[in-house]
Amino acid sequence: MSHALVLHEDRYFDSDPAQRRIARDLYALVKDLPILSPHGHVDPRLLAENIPFPDPARLLVIPDHYLFRMLYSQGVPLEKVGVPRIDGGETESDPRKIWQTVADHFHLFRGTPTGMWLKHELHDVLGVRERLTGENAMAIYDQIVEVLGRPENLPRALFERFNIEVLSTTDFPSASLEEHRKIAESGWKGRVVPSFRPDDVTDLMYPGWGRNIEALSEASGVSCETYGGYIQALENRRVFFRSMGATATDHGVFSPHTAGMERHEAEKVYSRALMGQATQADADRFTGHMLMEMARMSCEDGMTMQIHAGVLRNHNPEIHAKFGLDKGCDIPVAVDMVRNLKPLLNQYGNHPNLTLIVFTIDETVFARELAPLAGHYPAMKIGPAWWFNDSREGMLRYRRMTTETAGIYNTVGFNDDTRAFLSIPARHDLARRIDARYLAELVAEHVIDMDEAGEMIADLAYHLPKNNYQF
Amino acid sequence: MSHALVLHEDRYFDSDPAQRRIARDLYALVKDLPILSPHGHVDPRLLAENIPFPDPARLLVIPDHYLFRMLYSQGVPLEKVGVPRIDGGETESDPRKIWQTVADHFHLFRGTPTGMWLKHELHDVLGVRERLTGENAMAIYDQIVEVLGRPENLPRALFERFNIEVLSTTDFPSASLEEHRKIAESGWKGRVVPSFRPDDVTDLMYPGWGRNIEALSEASGVSCETYGGYIQALENRRVFFRSMGATATDHGVFSPHTAGMERHEAEKVYSRALMGQATQADADRFTGHMLMEMARMSCEDGMTMQIHAGVLRNHNPEIHAKFGLDKGCDIPVAVDMVRNLKPLLNQYGNHPNLTLIVFTIDETVFARELAPLAGHYPAMKIGPAWWFNDSREGMLRYRRMTTETAGIYNTVGFNDDTRAFLSIPARHDLARRIDARYLAELVAEHVIDMDEAGEMIADLAYHLPKNNYQF
Amino acid sequence: MSHALVLHEDRYFDSDPAQRRIARDLYALVKDLPILSPHGHVDPRLLAENIPFPDPARLLVIPDHYLFRMLYSQGVPLEKVGVPRIDGGETESDPRKIWQTVADHFHLFRGTPTGMWLKHELHDVLGVRERLTGENAMAIYDQIVEVLGRPENLPRALFERFNIEVLSTTDFPSASLEEHRKIAESGWKGRVVPSFRPDDVTDLMYPGWGRNIEALSEASGVSCETYGGYIQALENRRVFFRSMGATATDHGVFSPHTAGMERHEAEKVYSRALMGQATQADADRFTGHMLMEMARMSCEDGMTMQIHAGVLRNHNPEIHAKFGLDKGCDIPVAVDMVRNLKPLLNQYGNHPNLTLIVFTIDETVFARELAPLAGHYPAMKIGPAWWFNDSREGMLRYRRMTTETAGIYNTVGFNDDTRAFLSIPARHDLARRIDARYLAELVAEHVIDMDEAGEMIADLAYHLPKNNYQF
Repeated sequence: MSHALVLHEDRYFDSDPAQRRIARDLYALVKDLPILSPHGHVDPRLLAENIPFPDPARLLVIPDHYLFRMLYSQGVPLEKVGVPRIDGGETESDPRKIWQTVADHFHLFRGTPTGMWLKHELHDVLGVRERLTGENAMAIYDQIVEVLGRPENLPRALFERFNIEVLSTTDFPSASLEEHRKIAESGWKGRVVPSFRPDDVTDLMYPGWGRNIEALSEASGVSCETYGGYIQALENRRVFFRSMGATATDHGVFSPHTAGMERHEAEKVYSRALMGQATQADADRFTGHMLMEMARMSCEDGMTMQIHAGVLRNHNPEIHAKFGLDKGCDIPVAVDMVRNLKPLLNQYGNHPNLTLIVFTIDETVFARELAPLAGHYPAMKIGPAWWFNDSREGMLRYRRMTTETAGIYNTVGFNDDTRAFLSIPARHDLARRIDARYLAELVAEHVIDMDEAGEMIADLAYHLPKNNYQF
Repeated sequence: MSHALVLHEDRYFDSDPAQRRIARDLYALVKDLPILSPHGHVDPRLLAENIPFPDPARLLVIPDHYLFRMLYSQGVPLEKVGVPRIDGGETESDPRKIWQTVADHFHLFRGTPTGMWLKHELHDVLGVRERLTGENAMAIYDQIVEVLGRPENLPRALFERFNIEVLSTTDFPSASLEEHRKIAESGWKGRVVPSFRPDDVTDLMYPGWGRNIEALSEASGVSCETYGGYIQALENRRVFFRSMGATATDHGVFSPHTAGMERHEAEKVYSRALMGQATQADADRFTGHMLMEMARMSCEDGMTMQIHAGVLRNHNPEIHAKFGLDKGCDIPVAVDMVRNLKPLLNQYGNHPNLTLIVFTIDETVFARELAPLAGHYPAMKIGPAWWFNDSREGMLRYRRMTTETAGIYNTVGFNDDTRAFLSIPARHDLARRIDARYLAELVAEHVIDMDEAGEMIADLAYHLPKNNYQF
Repeated sequence: MSHALVLHEDRYFDSDPAQRRIARDLYALVKDLPILSPHGHVDPRLLAENIPFPDPARLLVIPDHYLFRMLYSQGVPLEKVGVPRIDGGETESDPRKIWQTVADHFHLFRGTPTGMWLKHELHDVLGVRERLTGENAMAIYDQIVEVLGRPENLPRALFERFNIEVLSTTDFPSASLEEHRKIAESGWKGRVVPSFRPDDVTDLMYPGWGRNIEALSEASGVSCETYGGYIQALENRRVFFRSMGATATDHGVFSPHTAGMERHEAEKVYSRALMGQATQADADRFTGHMLMEMARMSCEDGMTMQIHAGVLRNHNPEIHAKFGLDKGCDIPVAVDMVRNLKPLLNQYGNHPNLTLIVFTIDETVFARELAPLAGHYPAMKIGPAWWFNDSREGMLRYRRMTTETAGIYNTVGFNDDTRAFLSIPARHDLARRIDARYLAELVAEHVIDMDEAGEMIADLAYHLPKNNYQF
């Protein structure tokens, strides 16, 4: 039996009629605003080359760890959905079989954000009008293939149809940004900007750190044989990134520990690292030190600085060894922002030139730590409800836990943090709907007036990211 | 003035009319499904002997630490409600007086799950139609005594009326399971199965550990004078438990720390313990090691493994010394599941033969840790909202915090964890109502369709426990 | 464009019509009950001298760190809103300019409790009927000045109009309580009582500890040159405070660590402190010891004891150095109540003469730790949703997270903890509305009956603080 796939126009709004009416009105104010995507992982080649998307499996399944981790958790081997093995070992290569496996397990996504996004993508982008099941999987496969082949569904056409004003990618400091250059020089007017993420050279334990340092030397033309050269090379690359349109840096750290080291200490640790003798303790201190350095540079060059912390990466070594990074086994841990960020905030948090956006997946720190910190330090802002929290419930809890202490004006709007290009409108739409729902509640309960809510929803959807990411 | 005791048919559903209608329809689908009680503490003698329940005080008050701890917190001495003292000292022995004391303090339970369960028991099982007060306490006492004397309220009759399909008890490895055998051989078709809980021999600091080891030797017929013998004895008892219908093991630990020890180390620690020389540090390591061993055995024999962690037992030594274990002074603490479970999950979490059910009372870990872990590892499932959380608000928060990341299919349904036989239907009914309420919200907000919700409510109430506990 | 400033009669109630009707009925039962303010920081001189309030800036802005921290977080220098500098450096002295700055940034408070309180004060106390904006700031300024000049708005007149039954201040042990005496002897019947807060002499690292000890000696007439004298001086001052109407003590500590020291150890540490040689470790141990001593004294003299913990004070040293204490940079941290309070609860938690009220800003401990502890120990009660949590969402979460485990009868009602006299009715009104809303939900969902809710709302608003603070 087949079921219609419907995207209800009131979805995710509270079912109380009074609230729903208000939410609908607020949502209407922002649903057609351009999308700002200030923090994501879309491959810029997609838009540089503008070739048609491949089949449903390679488009929607293989690159999406949100999706295949759920199948894995229910006993479906990653090989069976075509996730490539590091050793080149055999995995399913028939996209139809992969799609069939996903369809057979589609009930697993009931009530999850992945389910909501996929429904949106299938319906609004790919024109599917039946709920995906094991039975209709092949028919829907054929339909998607047909749709993807149409010229109006080429990446750049979709970029425009999605009404994306700015799309930011995430790039290592040694990146040539060749694809960004190609896009800029192509005459196409889509704005795709890089952001500067130096984890691969600031974390001494990063895989291939030595090679990354060499690449940094090469890219910058500054020898990184000394700590001084290394710092200069980073400054040099920031200049280059800014010249290519970057407005922000991004720092993914396990712990948000920050603390400056004396120059000679930093030099010593850096030297040890060059000789391959750095310890984990060295790396932890050096990362904390480099966050201080990055804040200093941001005060100087004005780039917005993002720190996200609190994920234990590759919790499952078997999967990591077989399939590599980002395979759905990154698990949140509790973090202490208050003591860890203190040195950085004390030194740079009062600086008028710094915008520091902090986020994490430990949502207990939203109300306890992030809101009070952002509600005091002029430089600090609270990043979005991140990762496992960028969901219907997660985003609503985020608003409830941050607004009262920090207001909405110490937050920076939504970011999609996604590799999945097709999911961008779905994710922003969900975020806008949850904000509309949250504000509708405030209006219905007479906390704010409707005109205030109207300004706030536009601020959340557009002006706050625009200002804080300097677009 | 007396008030009618009413169980409203829409209780615990959201008051929004749209949601309530849906919740009612969903609840109707499961309210008559059989009860699976996969984790509890009912004394099997009750069903082996099938003799009438005693008076209200001995039935509802003295064995229920949920109830008497609340009275104690408001200054009522435990002696006054008949809780037996270890030293045999005097406590109230008149059940009427005890019942009167409870009735005089019944307002304390307003808004609490204990209040909700008691109302259900009084109304549905015992036929009471007036709200319990100090004034009507004796009349209600008489009524309950009369009701308990009727043949249709004998334990087995109630088991059938409650529509219990399986009731699992919790048993030490040296337990003879004599009562289970009696029930099985009695011809009565009620299914009462043991579960294997070896805490008394895996925790070297467990009261009477030495005696417990002797009992294990005796029960298994395998000498536990060596570590090797001890392991073999445990394996032997697992075989016996399985032969008696057990499908699961259960492990209550303070910390969820897991880590295998080298064989010779484990032997050394075990020897020290036999000589009465084990330290707390030894015990902590050994417990973590034995969880690894238990996971290994579960991979081999297929028994579902439950770990619950994070309770500081006997916080109040005065009460512990006077009245013993389980007297309402067990207090939750924050736990770290991510790092502590890593060794076990790394070694066994990808194993197709393991079902590992984890729960705790620190609800901050539901969203942050348990849902991401269960949403990745095939072996791991999230246990229910436990203990202080198996309540109207607690279970709703649990669904909100786990579903989006793990889906409902990485959870295992409700367990009542109760000593109070009469409260079993009340607890399952509350759980089913909260699940109906949660799913009704998803339907009303157009997250899922009604047919999906219909499948999900049945999965939550019946199929998930059935499958995960292998009933 | 100007907008009416309206306080909707149904504000903060759930928008579901069924719930709203019930909430309205419940709120009506308590809205006119007298205010008990058992924990606050209003300067008693205000009521001793009874002179008119100054201008809007000095009344509403300069003393309110809730307000100016939010402006600071958005880049407004504290100097610009007139916060006095420690070094006497220049700050804005024109109250009109300060008021204009606040009005220009008033949108920052949308959805925050500060916004809700200010709206209430402006509307109900100061008669403002237009929403404050940059445009109407001066007109509203003039209006407020005019209103404050009227005799019916003198402090004592407002105290009566606010229907305050008891107002408790917070006072150091060496305080002369001269203002309290003046009030008592003035013939005015307003009840303003001190509470005993000895942090300045129990925390060895408190600024000016040596001088504070001298002041304690002088005030008590007992030499504090020995530890024994120090203890006796404190006991002496408690007698004095009680003679002046005090019924409670208050203890603000970073960590809720408690642990008694041996007498000779305490003496040694105290001597070191007198010689200016105490370490931070000494101070931590001594604070934990003095909490034990304070509990002992409370068992003896019957004073209610309050402990609030978990705030890292003066997180921003730049602001602290320039402007001093309480400038909006006190940030919550995670706390462990279970292990830290164990020694105190074990020794005194079963004592019939102790009422120990515990609170914190780490709301994760409400459900996990405070509710189970208060739901067991007869002496312990849960304090209110404190500070960043005494808000619409915060107080609702507090009820949801404490009631099911501890019931409402192990909580003690609301406290406003405020320096801002004019905000007292606003804060109590918000608290009563949230309680009405919470109970209305329980009634609408058939958890409790209406008559029970009616008793509960009166208990929360009046009887629980009355009894627990012994007013």
